[in-house]
Amino acid sequence: MDGTQYSWGGRFSSAPEAIVQRFNASVAFDQRLAPQDLAGSRAHARMLESVGLLSAEELARLLGGLEAIEGEIKAGQFQWDEALEDVHMNIEARLVELVGPVGKKLHTARSRNDQVATDVRLFIAEEGARLIASLARLRRALIDAAAAHVDVLLPGYTHLQRAQPVRLAHHLLAHEARLQRDAGRVRDALRRQNQSPLGSGALSGTPHPIDRQQAAKTMGFDTVTSNSLDAVAARDHLLEVMAACSIASVGLSRLAEELVLWSSQEFGFVRLADAYCTGSSMMPQKKNPDMPELIRGKTGRVLGDFVALAVAEKALPLAYNKDLQEDKEPLFDAVDTLRDCLDVMAGTIATAQFQPEAMAEALADGFLEATEVADLLVASGLPFREAHHRVGTLVGRLVAENRRIPDLSDGEWQALGLAPETARARVQAEAMIEAKTQVGAVARGRVLEAIEQASQSLEAE
Amino acid sequence: MDGTQYSWGGRFSSAPEAIVQRFNASVAFDQRLAPQDLAGSRAHARMLESVGLLSAEELARLLGGLEAIEGEIKAGQFQWDEALEDVHMNIEARLVELVGPVGKKLHTARSRNDQVATDVRLFIAEEGARLIASLARLRRALIDAAAAHVDVLLPGYTHLQRAQPVRLAHHLLAHEARLQRDAGRVRDALRRQNQSPLGSGALSGTPHPIDRQQAAKTMGFDTVTSNSLDAVAARDHLLEVMAACSIASVGLSRLAEELVLWSSQEFGFVRLADAYCTGSSMMPQKKNPDMPELIRGKTGRVLGDFVALAVAEKALPLAYNKDLQEDKEPLFDAVDTLRDCLDVMAGTIATAQFQPEAMAEALADGFLEATEVADLLVASGLPFREAHHRVGTLVGRLVAENRRIPDLSDGEWQALGLAPETARARVQAEAMIEAKTQVGAVARGRVLEAIEQASQSLEAE
Amino acid sequence: MDGTQYSWGGRFSSAPEAIVQRFNASVAFDQRLAPQDLAGSRAHARMLESVGLLSAEELARLLGGLEAIEGEIKAGQFQWDEALEDVHMNIEARLVELVGPVGKKLHTARSRNDQVATDVRLFIAEEGARLIASLARLRRALIDAAAAHVDVLLPGYTHLQRAQPVRLAHHLLAHEARLQRDAGRVRDALRRQNQSPLGSGALSGTPHPIDRQQAAKTMGFDTVTSNSLDAVAARDHLLEVMAACSIASVGLSRLAEELVLWSSQEFGFVRLADAYCTGSSMMPQKKNPDMPELIRGKTGRVLGDFVALAVAEKALPLAYNKDLQEDKEPLFDAVDTLRDCLDVMAGTIATAQFQPEAMAEALADGFLEATEVADLLVASGLPFREAHHRVGTLVGRLVAENRRIPDLSDGEWQALGLAPETARARVQAEAMIEAKTQVGAVARGRVLEAIEQASQSLEAE
Amino acid sequence: MDGTQYSWGGRFSSAPEAIVQRFNASVAFDQRLAPQDLAGSRAHARMLESVGLLSAEELARLLGGLEAIEGEIKAGQFQWDEALEDVHMNIEARLVELVGPVGKKLHTARSRNDQVATDVRLFIAEEGARLIASLARLRRALIDAAAAHVDVLLPGYTHLQRAQPVRLAHHLLAHEARLQRDAGRVRDALRRQNQSPLGSGALSGTPHPIDRQQAAKTMGFDTVTSNSLDAVAARDHLLEVMAACSIASVGLSRLAEELVLWSSQEFGFVRLADAYCTGSSMMPQKKNPDMPELIRGKTGRVLGDFVALAVAEKALPLAYNKDLQEDKEPLFDAVDTLRDCLDVMAGTIATAQFQPEAMAEALADGFLEATEVADLLVASGLPFREAHHRVGTLVGRLVAENRRIPDLSDGEWQALGLAPETARARVQAEAMIEAKTQVGAVARGRVLEAIEQASQSLEAE
Repeated sequence: MDGTQYSWGGRFSSAPEAIVQRFNASVAFDQRLAPQDLAGSRAHARMLESVGLLSAEELARLLGGLEAIEGEIKAGQFQWDEALEDVHMNIEARLVELVGPVGKKLHTARSRNDQVATDVRLFIAEEGARLIASLARLRRALIDAAAAHVDVLLPGYTHLQRAQPVRLAHHLLAHEARLQRDAGRVRDALRRQNQSPLGSGALSGTPHPIDRQQAAKTMGFDTVTSNSLDAVAARDHLLEVMAACSIASVGLSRLAEELVLWSSQEFGFVRLADAYCTGSSMMPQKKNPDMPELIRGKTGRVLGDFVALAVAEKALPLAYNKDLQEDKEPLFDAVDTLRDCLDVMAGTIATAQFQPEAMAEALADGFLEATEVADLLVASGLPFREAHHRVGTLVGRLVAENRRIPDLSDGEWQALGLAPETARARVQAEAMIEAKTQVGAVARGRVLEAIEQASQSLEAE
Repeated sequence: MDGTQYSWGGRFSSAPEAIVQRFNASVAFDQRLAPQDLAGSRAHARMLESVGLLSAEELARLLGGLEAIEGEIKAGQFQWDEALEDVHMNIEARLVELVGPVGKKLHTARSRNDQVATDVRLFIAEEGARLIASLARLRRALIDAAAAHVDVLLPGYTHLQRAQPVRLAHHLLAHEARLQRDAGRVRDALRRQNQSPLGSGALSGTPHPIDRQQAAKTMGFDTVTSNSLDAVAARDHLLEVMAACSIASVGLSRLAEELVLWSSQEFGFVRLADAYCTGSSMMPQKKNPDMPELIRGKTGRVLGDFVALAVAEKALPLAYNKDLQEDKEPLFDAVDTLRDCLDVMAGTIATAQFQPEAMAEALADGFLEATEVADLLVASGLPFREAHHRVGTLVGRLVAENRRIPDLSDGEWQALGLAPETARARVQAEAMIEAKTQVGAVARGRVLEAIEQASQSLEAE
Repeated sequence: MDGTQYSWGGRFSSAPEAIVQRFNASVAFDQRLAPQDLAGSRAHARMLESVGLLSAEELARLLGGLEAIEGEIKAGQFQWDEALEDVHMNIEARLVELVGPVGKKLHTARSRNDQVATDVRLFIAEEGARLIASLARLRRALIDAAAAHVDVLLPGYTHLQRAQPVRLAHHLLAHEARLQRDAGRVRDALRRQNQSPLGSGALSGTPHPIDRQQAAKTMGFDTVTSNSLDAVAARDHLLEVMAACSIASVGLSRLAEELVLWSSQEFGFVRLADAYCTGSSMMPQKKNPDMPELIRGKTGRVLGDFVALAVAEKALPLAYNKDLQEDKEPLFDAVDTLRDCLDVMAGTIATAQFQPEAMAEALADGFLEATEVADLLVASGLPFREAHHRVGTLVGRLVAENRRIPDLSDGEWQALGLAPETARARVQAEAMIEAKTQVGAVARGRVLEAIEQASQSLEAE
Repeated sequence: MDGTQYSWGGRFSSAPEAIVQRFNASVAFDQRLAPQDLAGSRAHARMLESVGLLSAEELARLLGGLEAIEGEIKAGQFQWDEALEDVHMNIEARLVELVGPVGKKLHTARSRNDQVATDVRLFIAEEGARLIASLARLRRALIDAAAAHVDVLLPGYTHLQRAQPVRLAHHLLAHEARLQRDAGRVRDALRRQNQSPLGSGALSGTPHPIDRQQAAKTMGFDTVTSNSLDAVAARDHLLEVMAACSIASVGLSRLAEELVLWSSQEFGFVRLADAYCTGSSMMPQKKNPDMPELIRGKTGRVLGDFVALAVAEKALPLAYNKDLQEDKEPLFDAVDTLRDCLDVMAGTIATAQFQPEAMAEALADGFLEATEVADLLVASGLPFREAHHRVGTLVGRLVAENRRIPDLSDGEWQALGLAPETARARVQAEAMIEAKTQVGAVARGRVLEAIEQASQSLEAE
């Protein structure tokens, strides 16, 4: 049939069957679930045998066939056929070829709906664990870099204006703290989805005397889902993982932005390793921070993936609707993209050369001592708002005179109400930092403590 | 000044100062944080006193002033002033009016950055708890409705095609199962953010000898944040709550869609209470399912809120940037919208009149017995795929003959390979349902068990 | 080098170079731009020759090499090399292999920045035209279906409640009207981007004496871009096309939703052709509206693509940043997805069998006559709101009595204030429809007129 | 009634009626459409009179009432009542109060569906025009700033690395070029939606003998919509305007990012006027670029608005569904936010003090001459790729030696193959710029030409 019997047939580039087949088929992307599909089928087959729905011999033949298929797929020799729609039907068809009619028994007490739901949960469990490992690698890189730069000082910024001196280690650990929460979010998502949907059938279960808990345990699930309709229809567990990926991407984009800024000639705070940069086809002098730029840009992609699935699931009645076939590509893309970003960022951080001199130069300029002076005035009894106002006026005058706070004369310090020597000692960057000794603040001891805790927390996971 | 000194001044509807002031100020929306701001200030003042930065008398005067302000706000008599930018400065200015210069001491060892970070976490803690309560109300309504309709049967659908019979209770519990996870997501978000940022200063802590843990405990936080930069810069805890809201909204939209479908003349499965419907200005006969429609539509809003903040935070260098002022309105809108949707849906469900007769009629048509027949053939030894094929052929023939499965003659059952009487008994909707006895399936006992478990789980929270 | 010299090297699945190379390279997806890249290179080479930067012989050799490469690519024999990063460098490297050192001259007065900008605009021009063609196919299918069903009546719905009778043709044309605007949006986007960026260099132009207009004309552009920084940095033309795709997708999702609803047993308004449906692996009786479901679900994908690029471009300083490499995949995906959806929908509509009987049955129930009765009362002098109220009361009573408006007795009509015979004639569905004779309304003549106009408008494009 | 008759009533903070009424009502936000609603009603009334559905006297009374209402609203004395749901019913109810029963005749031949559709189109027409005016103001500010800085040079950047020298005027005009397209997008959207939906009724028109064209002309529409179902159901015209706003916001965020970067101590390229900055509550020295930061952050909001409505409209069957009530708030927010951003940015640019010295310093460092040297080599006959390679090697050596290209000795120039004097003259920033004389490039004459054209194009609109 070539579509010519339809009034519109001649206007299509392909016969309707061809475009419909391609549009409908998912095997182009869901073949990625083959390992999970095989694992699920093995568990299902074992359970069917244990409850008497398969004989031991049938089981052995099925397992043999599944193993052969696994080998073919690994070797890249498996022939995926779009006409068979999806990974499940492709594998089943090949199984029947390999082991004969018994292959058709594997689908007993199972629907593609609960089968694919199972595959996806197994996939999330595995990929989630990989994400956590990649998060750990980046956290390790940040902690190592922090440990190596405890005594490097740089300006902390607000509004991209120099604000107060901080330790580079403290700055790096700020990102680590967020990544720790990112890992927590992924872990929570994995815990919440750790239930086997297998046995939910198309939507209402199956009349066969199956043992869902056994199959669940074989596959490594903690337990089974509690409602068959929900098990095949809901996609909130995918959305939760993808939301965690989106949030992590936003955090990464902030670290990436800083590396781009810091790599600029204007900042000069870091030199990225050559392996993490590229040149220009037209400008021979360029060394571009491509890796952080790509990581920053891929935030959009991961967020777009989340939006894509949320929109696809919106307003669907229970249970399965074909729209839900659109869940896999964004899921795959979100976890792959984030994992790559994390790994590349880990390498970028591990090989980055931070530039303490440039940071020190930036510290010396910018009136970062102003808050400290105000705080000294407060310590001497002035209400905060008045101290703030008095220092603001002083800074305004110094700017106009092109002077800085360390240039203040004894008389000027005294006019402010502060003892010159004490004040000068306190407005050193190091002194300002060491004065901040609360939990979570920038004093050396606190930062060392934070490095130790971050490290322990990472090991403990 | 009226803007006329600028070349563009005359073209503005307002002088630059006016538009800049309005654009910059957040008090129009962040005044909502007044209760949290006052709570944080009280805790901060008490801590300042306990470490000697305020005298007992100063503390008393500050607390008195804060209480007076709280009274004014509750009474709607507080004069919010846009020129004072935000909720913090408005309250502080009024405090100084009320208690004199000591009011200026309250900001000692505090920056607006850690102050607003504290307010927002307190807000999330309170609103998160309200969301969980609203989730519980809807879950309760669904469980009650399930308990009241255990013996009501209806078609379960896939692709909006009648597929297999299920219990209405089972269907309602599918939504409850998802809401249970929604509550878990909110709870996880609350747990993760349960740390006081107060004491993080503008970004690096404070040189004053404060006691962060004490203030944290006073405010009800478990502990303190571990990195001052992260504490004022990160917004992932807002995003996490808003992602949870988005995911819950998507789930709600599916329930809402079903209520809209079921309210149609075509389905007729439910009659919504008059209080949850409205009429038409032009068509006197209309009774429209406005509440579920609005709930369905508001999914976009909540998802848009999440996107708004994720985009705003993307690629910001540490620490605070003014862009982050854009975090509050989407946060407020997301939690308010979801809470309203949950409450309205709870009322809609609690007052809905499900229509068992219409459901029964729908069950009788649609060949829902087909899977069962296939399963009977499997039970008699046929491989699943062959059974499926044989039943598919049968259904095709019956459709052409305008007959249904219950119309099969003894001879036809026998030709299929099944004993007529057994088969007929098994293809009753009730029988098909009762054959599915696994955990999570639709048999009566399982559904009663599920109602009991859902109820216990809800009480246990 | 294998990465082992890095502390983190052993933890990576691949050496840093490998992951960085893969992460950085775009050739996996931008090879799709090869036809545009070759067209651009041909135009560039011709222009270089015409201004004396290449000799005629050099030009001939370059054109020969480019033709050979085109042949290799078409034949699937071109060896794409990830180490060469992108489509441009792959083609250039091969060109040098084929034609020797003169191949290196092709990049004279060109940067990859303006080169890729040119490729993408050529791509959009071509794909935009294909989209318009696909939009036209679907519009044709709708117009044809409308023409074939002018006399088929069905309820128009609001809130998914039966509201007023309409012609099926009118309903189908409502979708066509929107698609007409969709085509207009794509056309506007094409017009706006129809400027050649070639010659903008990396960002500031080139010192070579090139002729931008000549190259532009050769490639089919109307003119050249007016600012070199803007030409290489901006992505709003991609976003505009993708926004048009998103908006079209939302419109398509509404038509798709209706086909899903109408395919349900409850509505029964349409039977989709077998070629556009699939069955169930578990339920032999199912015939699922997979095509409209997929089309509906893919709305998320297209919208996600738009979000992805908008987020990627957000807050990038001028000019090119590597983040912008993330523009291509969402662009490709958005146009491919929408085109497929349009083509599949065109086929779905063209082969759908609408069911006039089911529509007529639905018309008979639902008090669709109510507005008409109110309008008759208005015509007799009653203010609209009173007429509305009076009919609302009547409907309430009839529902309670399980009667319908056609069942009203003469006395009841008279009590309402209407002549029984006239009223009865006027509340026939056909009569109600024929009474609405404004432009854009449902009377037969107006619908025929609308079909004619839609058809003419489509031909005129 | 207090909700206690419902089992769940006691658990609600408000009686069901209260929450339902608030949830359902739109008057809190759609009262903004009052001017449009009154304009539409006036046009409708005039048309009703002209076709004989109202007497001249009735018309006069209605117009009088509408005028009175307009006065009350302007004076802030109108009593909006949530129980009356929306702006339309509030105004109608007041009209009946003011003019008696004739007020009820105004809704003849009109439904709230076509009424609100009309209001929204009138709103878009007005707000779109205001957006275009605000776009023009910002374009004017950029063109003026360009004209004032034609001879200021700064580095053009790629990857935030200094790349090639450009004129500040050229850089500013790059943003203007995009804004020109933004205006075009808004204009196209206005053109496409410039059709009156009034007369479409609830969905199918009206039996009354109305004159749609007359009412359309009175309201300033070009023509009428062509399909009644489409006219009340579609929201693509809102989405198109909001997409245009989103795309413009992304562009603005890039300009905003640059102002933030340029305001940093590291760049120092601009000083923003005090009126466009704020200070810090804790750091007295800070002068923060709040305005560009807010503009940058609000990108998320506008994009979120677009997503919100796209999601709300997804998969709705025709015609009106209550979900569509969710269209107004995002529309209002998107246009308001963008307009404010444009106006604030215009003021920011108009009052910014660019810093030519800092720009010149940045130009002197960064090997921006490298491309020029390569181009000189090309001009001398070297293939581009070889020239590129040779210069790359040179730059690498100079970096290692801490030297710059202007430091090259005669011998070094000669070794490269270039005449020292010529080369030195050519690698001056000014010379490099002046060498680029194509349309759209940075040479002085081209920039002056571009300023002139931009200015003319702006005036012409």
